[in-house]
Amino acid sequence: MKKIKAGIVNVTGYAGMELARLLGAHPEVEIAYATGRSSAGQKLSKFLPHLSSLDITITEEAGEADVAFLALPHRESAAQAVRLLDRNIKVIDVSADFRLKDASLYPEWYSFDHPAPELLTEAVYGLPELYRSQIRSARLVANPGCYPTSAILALAPALKAGIIKDSIIIDAKSGLSGAGRTLSMKSHFCEANENVSAYALEGHRHFPEIDQELAKAGNSSKLRITFVPHLIPVTRGILSSCYADLSGNISQTEIEKIYSSFYTDEPFVRLTEAPPGISQTRGSNYCMVYPRIDQRTGRLLVISAIDNLIKGAAGQAIQNMNIMFGIEEKTAISMPALYP
Amino acid sequence: MKKIKAGIVNVTGYAGMELARLLGAHPEVEIAYATGRSSAGQKLSKFLPHLSSLDITITEEAGEADVAFLALPHRESAAQAVRLLDRNIKVIDVSADFRLKDASLYPEWYSFDHPAPELLTEAVYGLPELYRSQIRSARLVANPGCYPTSAILALAPALKAGIIKDSIIIDAKSGLSGAGRTLSMKSHFCEANENVSAYALEGHRHFPEIDQELAKAGNSSKLRITFVPHLIPVTRGILSSCYADLSGNISQTEIEKIYSSFYTDEPFVRLTEAPPGISQTRGSNYCMVYPRIDQRTGRLLVISAIDNLIKGAAGQAIQNMNIMFGIEEKTAISMPALYP
Amino acid sequence: MKKIKAGIVNVTGYAGMELARLLGAHPEVEIAYATGRSSAGQKLSKFLPHLSSLDITITEEAGEADVAFLALPHRESAAQAVRLLDRNIKVIDVSADFRLKDASLYPEWYSFDHPAPELLTEAVYGLPELYRSQIRSARLVANPGCYPTSAILALAPALKAGIIKDSIIIDAKSGLSGAGRTLSMKSHFCEANENVSAYALEGHRHFPEIDQELAKAGNSSKLRITFVPHLIPVTRGILSSCYADLSGNISQTEIEKIYSSFYTDEPFVRLTEAPPGISQTRGSNYCMVYPRIDQRTGRLLVISAIDNLIKGAAGQAIQNMNIMFGIEEKTAISMPALYP
Amino acid sequence: MKKIKAGIVNVTGYAGMELARLLGAHPEVEIAYATGRSSAGQKLSKFLPHLSSLDITITEEAGEADVAFLALPHRESAAQAVRLLDRNIKVIDVSADFRLKDASLYPEWYSFDHPAPELLTEAVYGLPELYRSQIRSARLVANPGCYPTSAILALAPALKAGIIKDSIIIDAKSGLSGAGRTLSMKSHFCEANENVSAYALEGHRHFPEIDQELAKAGNSSKLRITFVPHLIPVTRGILSSCYADLSGNISQTEIEKIYSSFYTDEPFVRLTEAPPGISQTRGSNYCMVYPRIDQRTGRLLVISAIDNLIKGAAGQAIQNMNIMFGIEEKTAISMPALYP
Repeated sequence: MKKIKAGIVNVTGYAGMELARLLGAHPEVEIAYATGRSSAGQKLSKFLPHLSSLDITITEEAGEADVAFLALPHRESAAQAVRLLDRNIKVIDVSADFRLKDASLYPEWYSFDHPAPELLTEAVYGLPELYRSQIRSARLVANPGCYPTSAILALAPALKAGIIKDSIIIDAKSGLSGAGRTLSMKSHFCEANENVSAYALEGHRHFPEIDQELAKAGNSSKLRITFVPHLIPVTRGILSSCYADLSGNISQTEIEKIYSSFYTDEPFVRLTEAPPGISQTRGSNYCMVYPRIDQRTGRLLVISAIDNLIKGAAGQAIQNMNIMFGIEEKTAISMPALYP
Repeated sequence: MKKIKAGIVNVTGYAGMELARLLGAHPEVEIAYATGRSSAGQKLSKFLPHLSSLDITITEEAGEADVAFLALPHRESAAQAVRLLDRNIKVIDVSADFRLKDASLYPEWYSFDHPAPELLTEAVYGLPELYRSQIRSARLVANPGCYPTSAILALAPALKAGIIKDSIIIDAKSGLSGAGRTLSMKSHFCEANENVSAYALEGHRHFPEIDQELAKAGNSSKLRITFVPHLIPVTRGILSSCYADLSGNISQTEIEKIYSSFYTDEPFVRLTEAPPGISQTRGSNYCMVYPRIDQRTGRLLVISAIDNLIKGAAGQAIQNMNIMFGIEEKTAISMPALYP
Repeated sequence: MKKIKAGIVNVTGYAGMELARLLGAHPEVEIAYATGRSSAGQKLSKFLPHLSSLDITITEEAGEADVAFLALPHRESAAQAVRLLDRNIKVIDVSADFRLKDASLYPEWYSFDHPAPELLTEAVYGLPELYRSQIRSARLVANPGCYPTSAILALAPALKAGIIKDSIIIDAKSGLSGAGRTLSMKSHFCEANENVSAYALEGHRHFPEIDQELAKAGNSSKLRITFVPHLIPVTRGILSSCYADLSGNISQTEIEKIYSSFYTDEPFVRLTEAPPGISQTRGSNYCMVYPRIDQRTGRLLVISAIDNLIKGAAGQAIQNMNIMFGIEEKTAISMPALYP
Repeated sequence: MKKIKAGIVNVTGYAGMELARLLGAHPEVEIAYATGRSSAGQKLSKFLPHLSSLDITITEEAGEADVAFLALPHRESAAQAVRLLDRNIKVIDVSADFRLKDASLYPEWYSFDHPAPELLTEAVYGLPELYRSQIRSARLVANPGCYPTSAILALAPALKAGIIKDSIIIDAKSGLSGAGRTLSMKSHFCEANENVSAYALEGHRHFPEIDQELAKAGNSSKLRITFVPHLIPVTRGILSSCYADLSGNISQTEIEKIYSSFYTDEPFVRLTEAPPGISQTRGSNYCMVYPRIDQRTGRLLVISAIDNLIKGAAGQAIQNMNIMFGIEEKTAISMPALYP
């Protein structure tokens, strides 16, 4: 079989690196090119010694390919996507540029006017557990954010089942790789180590994405969602602790039935028998979900765990590619977590 | 002035060690004895090289003293406290044995029948910010748990002000020293490192203590409190993220006024201008509190940070002792955090 | 092709788990059984949620197989190996029981008399870079220790080239997974975190193994080797910093030539252009080696980095199996490091 | 008694912050000013919330004081020191600008020509264990580097005793705070976490300082010193593992006698009975030293541990100030380590 030619735009950030690592081991993919700005012209292996088995020279521009993975900062991604789609190249955008359906949210949350609002309708939100059939035929996939992936997978079954009243609180804990490879004081080792803090209490950019998808799942525009992200001193992983008020009495058995039936055929979601830890997902594309009724208050608690760089970014992007190209969905992303 | 003779019962756990370290530098205290079981007869400095400036030999039994700090496991503490009080020794109990007012909660939450239920009424809950005047004349102080300290200090001002409706969620993140020095798989380095997980979802032992004190503060028995503790890979610190539904419209300015007026004279509570991190409290007796109105939902968010071994245990115990003996309250516990 | 049936004896320790994870993805291997003591009868996926894609029930006894991997504590391994060899099952022993050629070293270093000293001659030391041809036809492979793997790969090229005089110092830094899954105070999170210390200064059990192999490589019984292991607060990885006095003047170019020619065809050893970090090997079977002449003293410095659970244990064991069974050597162990 | 007025030049780096924290609790010192560039005009407590008990406004310029602590980058420090000495202000320079006696080393190691080479002779190397009497009357103290402090305290007793032949290897492991507060890729959390690597193999700037002082201590210009620093994922602490060839046969008892007699009256050096860990020195001014004869090779091993920001910077600077001003040497720096 002829291999799929895949390009990686901006290979030098953490999501880009993971794309290179995972695509480099994909039996049906050939990495057509990998771009990077300051490092253009360098061997990827020089820049990233752990990828020295890949013989790739970083280029400045995107070349020919069947599909391009965009691991660019937001805003730059949208412009690039337009150019690639014009060349009939499928696009999987790891940035936020096509995740929101309402173009007016971009100036508010991302401080730019969207250059191609017409594509927002066409773009498919790349969460296979909710949109697999649309992904199959998509030209443009908006790969979900890491926090939204963990929050939506935690809450969608309950929302679809119509058992959540309105109040939802998502308390998320993320490793530092979610903050990227760009230097900043909050990612400085001595500031992040032995620390934990909440941030973006006035509103994190992933909020409108969570809001949009939970509203759709619950078929309701009246959800009262509070989302508070925290930084914890680990490299990879997001744990989302979700709290929701139920519209009626639900037993632990019933909630487990709702979740297990929702995820019964999903290759990458696992319901666990005990609260999951992020170390059980590190390096893997799995999302672990643990729903539980808080007996005292009748509230629903759901804990979910993912590796933010894999199910929350590069792995899910490849899952989307596999679906788009009719490849077995688990190809190249079926490895278990690297635990401990 | 004659120094206060203070005894430490069970110096070999983390709370006991911290008591020794802090009391050893207290200008008005003399450590009368320090007990330990397996290590009785050893020099404290041999067992704990960082305390080699203290010339103390660990004993098996508690000796004479003006006050005894009990850093024993629950159940053992109650029995010991009774004996010491009979000898007219004041007791500051760092265990949970005198924190709950309702004796029937002990069999339910701690699996033992309380041996001295009559003392539960007498015991003063040792949170100076709420019970300073009672502490002043107490014979027996029940030093608060670490999670309760952080949660109560976060929520008491709002509850006392009567602005919280009923729904309260406390999502707490604790370092591993809270789990103590006893070996366990969850405290094994490779299991805890690069991990975060929720635990005790069926009900943590600190829940009834939080429940009791928040109910008192809010003068309400109808609060719907969910408390979910998490372990994060740091040694010291608790960050509590608290979410509460408000009974009416409250602005950010109003909430700040409520909190700053409540804590205006408190030496160890600081309201911060940005979400606090636990590293800003490490090694100190300070609690940092950051209240904020979530504009979208009108909810109250409060983030609090403490060092679980100091404000959450040994430091607060010494603060209580200072109050009980009429010493300046900040003596020996005024050091700023060891940051970074 | 018929798959090789591989058994894992003691799957519940860190080396055993890694064997299960890696063998579970090996295209030419079928896991015939996996034993465990206290967990016998349980599903492996219950015990180890990250391996839930493997449908294995833990057994008490070793069953039929073409090859057995022993991840037992020393002493138990020797007895088990004898029984398996008698049943014509090939054995790859991850313990130390067949690494030393001189039986008299076992009472001295491991406190037991070796039950099958005659097998010590037959056993092949499973370091493919030095003993590949013997491994090919071995019935019994003694898989090297983690520290020895890193130290020998760092120093063998120089010793074989005859350029080291006699003085060798190996200062090794290991993550905590090297200390295993058994609870101990030194592996307790709060004791290991934010700490580093040397241990076993009177002599670590890996010393005689290092001594034996370096002496062979250098064809000299007069080496003065000092080996000091340190624990650092990471889960995986060993960095060995090796210092050796040279017998003559060697330039940086010459030393690089010696090393690159020695490792030219080795699939799992990479010479790096900058000092390697263990994070560049995490989750991979690669050993990174960086030789350098210290200009001021004319000494040789060699830094090597491995993942102690992979190249230092399970990965190398599978590399040995691949060689023994004529499978392409990189099969199932070619994944790049999980970085960051 | 009138308090000493102390100024802190550049309070916003890690050493400067620690100076503020420790001086703020010094009973005989008043912080006269604290300078900072970009943060001039701000309240120190706003910039550093953990120091909110200090009511200090950051200034741009150094003011009047009895003594100034310079926590500036090298080169800037020298120029500032000259100006302050001219104003008859005593100077304790935490930078490297007055540590080297040979002015020609500055262009070689620090890439600048020393602006005041005549002061290099006058400056006293501020290691109280070696130069206490000179410090007493010094106008200008060159506070030692963190690596040199740990290495010199480990080796000076043996060198002074004349028992070391010539070969010395110092393998040092440092926490990230040693790399300062300036952002860099090597201090980026995800790069430093779960990692360890050697750096500056071509020559670290602390080498000539170590070389100068060990040569003096050993009264020999023929020492063959190799110094290799490593970064480990902790915030504070340096562990130096030192290896030296002995000129004759020395027993363990003899070496202990040499060290205990050398450090018998030293308030801040402790000989330990087991290899020390850096966590036993965190937050304290103590240096722990553990000398040991390697029986197999007859080599001397010495392990030393310090907190790089305290005994390796701010604490030692205050120790020097105490000596210079005739204050009890332990004042304000006698706190035990914050362990765990």
